[in-house]
Formats: sequence, C-alpha cells, structure tokens
Amino acid sequence: SLFLQASEKTSASDFTPLVTSKINMQFISQLFTVVFRTFVNTFIQFKKPIIAAVNGPAIGLGASILPLCDVIWANEKAWFQTPYTIFGQTPDACSSVTFPLIMGVASANEMLLSGRKLTAQEACAKGLVSQVLWPGTFTQEVMARIKELVSCNSVVLRESKALVRNINRAALEQANERECEALKRVWGSPQGMDSILKYLQKKIDEF
Amino acid sequence: SLFLQASEKTSASDFTPLVTSKINMQFISQLFTVVFRTFVNTFIQFKKPIIAAVNGPAIGLGASILPLCDVIWANEKAWFQTPYTIFGQTPDACSSVTFPLIMGVASANEMLLSGRKLTAQEACAKGLVSQVLWPGTFTQEVMARIKELVSCNSVVLRESKALVRNINRAALEQANERECEALKRVWGSPQGMDSILKYLQKKIDEF
Amino acid sequence: SLFLQASEKTSASDFTPLVTSKINMQFISQLFTVVFRTFVNTFIQFKKPIIAAVNGPAIGLGASILPLCDVIWANEKAWFQTPYTIFGQTPDACSSVTFPLIMGVASANEMLLSGRKLTAQEACAKGLVSQVLWPGTFTQEVMARIKELVSCNSVVLRESKALVRNINRAALEQANERECEALKRVWGSPQGMDSILKYLQKKIDEF
Repeated sequence: SLFLQASEKTSASDFTPLVTSKINMQFISQLFTVVFRTFVNTFIQFKKPIIAAVNGPAIGLGASILPLCDVIWANEKAWFQTPYTIFGQTPDACSSVTFPLIMGVASANEMLLSGRKLTAQEACAKGLVSQVLWPGTFTQEVMARIKELVSCNSVVLRESKALVRNINRAALEQANERECEALKRVWGSPQGMDSILKYLQKKIDEF
Repeated sequence: SLFLQASEKTSASDFTPLVTSKINMQFISQLFTVVFRTFVNTFIQFKKPIIAAVNGPAIGLGASILPLCDVIWANEKAWFQTPYTIFGQTPDACSSVTFPLIMGVASANEMLLSGRKLTAQEACAKGLVSQVLWPGTFTQEVMARIKELVSCNSVVLRESKALVRNINRAALEQANERECEALKRVWGSPQGMDSILKYLQKKIDEF
Repeated sequence: SLFLQASEKTSASDFTPLVTSKINMQFISQLFTVVFRTFVNTFIQFKKPIIAAVNGPAIGLGASILPLCDVIWANEKAWFQTPYTIFGQTPDACSSVTFPLIMGVASANEMLLSGRKLTAQEACAKGLVSQVLWPGTFTQEVMARIKELVSCNSVVLRESKALVRNINRAALEQANERECEALKRVWGSPQGMDSILKYLQKKIDEF
C-alpha cells in the first residue's frame, strides 16, 4: 500500500523562491498543470488501497487529495484547509467533485470558497477522515492498523477497492482535467497571477 | 451574489385564500408546475455563488431549495421541514436527488416521507447547512462573511462554482422535470387534490 | 410496505454446518451468487417504501442491505459491522457503491476494508440509520411511526420513492452484478476458499 505521511506543514508558500518574475510564473503555471494532472491521476488510478496518516496541518493539495485515498487516519492535532479563493486559485485534486459528494455542497463550499479550517474532529464528522487518533500513540496505532490490513487476503483488498472506485474513475479523471484547465485559465489571467503574487509576497514579508 | 433571507415563516398555507374551489385548484396546479420548474431551474443554472441565510423556519420549498444554494448559514433558532406526504405532495426543488446525496437515503426519507423536523444543529450535522450562527449577531456575521467572499477574485469564484456544479447540472434539470411531472400527476388525481384541500382547510380552521 | 426486523444476530457463521468439504463450498459459492443477486435486486426494484427496524447486531448482509431500505430505525443497542476482508469476502448488497455515497469513501472503507464496528449512534451520525430509538419502547415507537406513514396517500408515497430511487436503479443493478462477479472470483480462488474455511473453522471451534 502507498503510505502518505504529512508530518510537516506544506503549502504553496514553499515554492516562493521560485517565483521571482512573471516569466517564471508563466512557466510554473504550465509546469504545475502538467505535474498536477499526472500526480492526481496517479492517485485516481492506483489499484491497491492508499492509507493516509495526517499528523499535522493539511493545507491545499494536502487536504484536497485525501478523498482519493482509501482510509484516512488523523492525529487529533491535525487540521484541514483549502483556502483556494484567498490566493486566487480554483479547486484541485478533484475536490470540486469529491468534497460535495462526501460532505454535501454547503460544507464543501465553505471549505472551497470561504477557506474554512476544519479541526480533525470536524473533518471526521463530515466524512473527510475515517477516524481521529490520539497524538501520543498516533504512529503506533497507525502502524498496528496497517499491519492488520496488510494481513488480509490481497486479492480481496484489490477487488474491494476496484468495486468501490471503478464506478467513479472516469468521472474523477474528467474532473481532474476540468480543474487543471481552470487552473491554467486562472493562472494565465493577469488578475489570477496578481492575486498569487500578492499572496506569495505577503508570505515572504511575514517570513 | 444572489442573497436569500427567510425571515418569516413561509409555506403552502400562505396560498390558502387562492384555493376556494376545485376549478381554482386545477388552474393553480398547472400554474404551480410551470412556476416551480422555472424557479428551480433558475437556481440550477445561476452562475454566481448563491448564499442563503436562514433566519427562521424553512418549510417545504424553503428547505428543499437550499441544496441548490452554495453556502447556507442558519440562525440557531432556524428549523427545517419538508412535510410533503402529510399534505399529499411529492418532493420538489430537486430534493429527491439532492437530499439523498447530502445526507444519505435513510435521513433524506425521514424528511421527505415522514416529514421529520430538523433543528439548525441537526441540519448542519447532516450537511444541509454550512454553519450555525448565534441569533444575537446573525445578520452582522452573515454580512461580514459575505463581504469577505465578495472580496475574492470574481473569476475564481465563478470558475470554482462551475467546477462544483456543472457536473450535476443536467441531472438536476432532469430531476426538476421528473418532480414537476409527479406533482402534476398527484395534483391532478382526485386523491391528491383531496389531501391538499383537507390540509388547507385544517390550516384555515386553525387560523 | 416490506418490514424487516433483525431481532437475532445473523451472519455467515449460521451456515457453518453446510460447509463440510470443498465440493460443498463450490456448490454453495455458485448458489450464493445466484441467491444474492436475486435477493439484492428484489430490494433495488421494490416499489413501495421499505422500513427497516434494527433491533440487534447487523453483521455483513444485515448491515450492507440497509441503504437499499428507505427508512431505517435502530435500537440504541444495535450495532453494525461488515467485516468482509476478515473472512476473505468482497462487499455485497451494493455496499461498495451505497456506503461511499452515504458516508464518504474514508468511513466506507473503514467498514468495508477494516471491518470497523459502528454503534447505533455512530451509524446514525454517518447517515446509515435514520434515527436511533430507545430500547424500552423500540417496538411501540416503530409501530406508531409505521402507522403514521401508512396513513399517508399511497400514490404520493410510491411517487416519492420512485423520484428518490429511479435515478440510481440502473447503477445499483450494475453494482450488484459487479459485486456478485467479484464474489464468484474470490470464492472460486483457492486463497479465497481457504480464508472462508479458516474463518468458519474458527467460528466452529469457538462454538
């Protein structure tokens, strides 16, 4: 199984050194679209169960990718936020489709449009997370559960995942495509580029 | 953005003076079907985010239309009910499709078939409402949040809404069509007209 | 209306006396596939509302069939578990499709892959159950509610159910077909048969 562990806060601001001019930005926009599309499709098409263990803040892609994982355990201290509109971005990792399916449009839009931050407990109540585990024993708990899951018949696990996922695969691939096209349009517009640059500048200043 | 505020209780009973004879009823049934179809399609096809602030009881259409809005804030005192079967009506505003998607068939049917009343907190837990706000500061809170949302890049807001909604638009339009046809059939049947007239008579007597 | 009452614990282990040899197993595997397909399709295609009252543990098919019912009331002492992978089985009764739709993929997979047990309250919070009722008055409460539902216009009930269900009927029939094919493959493989036999042997030894 693929194992994701977000132990450190990661967000778009990690890429700030790359953004020094509008020329770079154009290049990054195109690069990002291709990288995103492939990255997200890898999750959509992965045949074995994907377990995600969220140990800290999951922001942007770190949160939006979770519904493409199969079981998601979160540390009680973890939190989840997709503040796309704030830095002038549109939803990614199929979150425009998966979030409404999981939590309903009303809650999904609070995250996608208003950038609302969810605690681990809230994310669990809304169905984004399978279960919340205590910080003290998080890693041990996760490892014990993975061991248990791995002890199951692998044919059964693979067949079960295929049954759950295959029905939506084409719809998710199309959603990914539409989201990447929207990102390209937004990143390509002067207004879009300005909001990202302003956001990044603010982050650099804070730093 | 379109802004809905339900400050006063509204329901089918507001139309009681119109219902004085079976001839009127037939006319109203046909009128309602056309008005409903257009009204609901306007919500389905609206391109900017729709914010709903529910300040009091949302009954029937006032509750069923909410999933076609994008962000829904509710006053703690608000409540939600779709007692369709009680007055011999079938679901409207695509609630036959949106309610099961949001809260699962078991909860959706308790509302649609058994007419169960949800408190604001219950509606939020089930995903019908984005967040519950305190009565004392409800309007200020809502206005502050709308201001924040409006400050976002409008291209991004519109693209985000399109990503979330376009995938379901055709299915919702078809659901609206099917629901209007069912309403016409129910309203057109003697049994259906009788239950509505009985319900309305009861309401007039109570009044 | 069809009325389901699970008053006693039922699970695959009830069939242990039948499983005495691998030859029997092969026969049972084929028989089960046919019986399952028909049984599940009967629920998918049933035109009147189906009420389920869950009075005790609902395990395997007893839990997975619930989303094909229309209103589900659970005794506070009831619990819900689909430990398929533990005894080498894949999901049935369309749960590979209905569970993710109702509770999101993260929670669905905890039940379907990890075999997590839900209390009645948890099942209700996740949308699998309409409402949890107190043990002392469970049967009276259920009967009172059914009486109320039955007093509604039957044309309206049938039309309402058709609106909620018809949109998904073909998808559910296909899901049932895919699940039965997967069960046949799993039951037909030596690995699959071994895990079932081991599981059943363990149950017989416990007994």
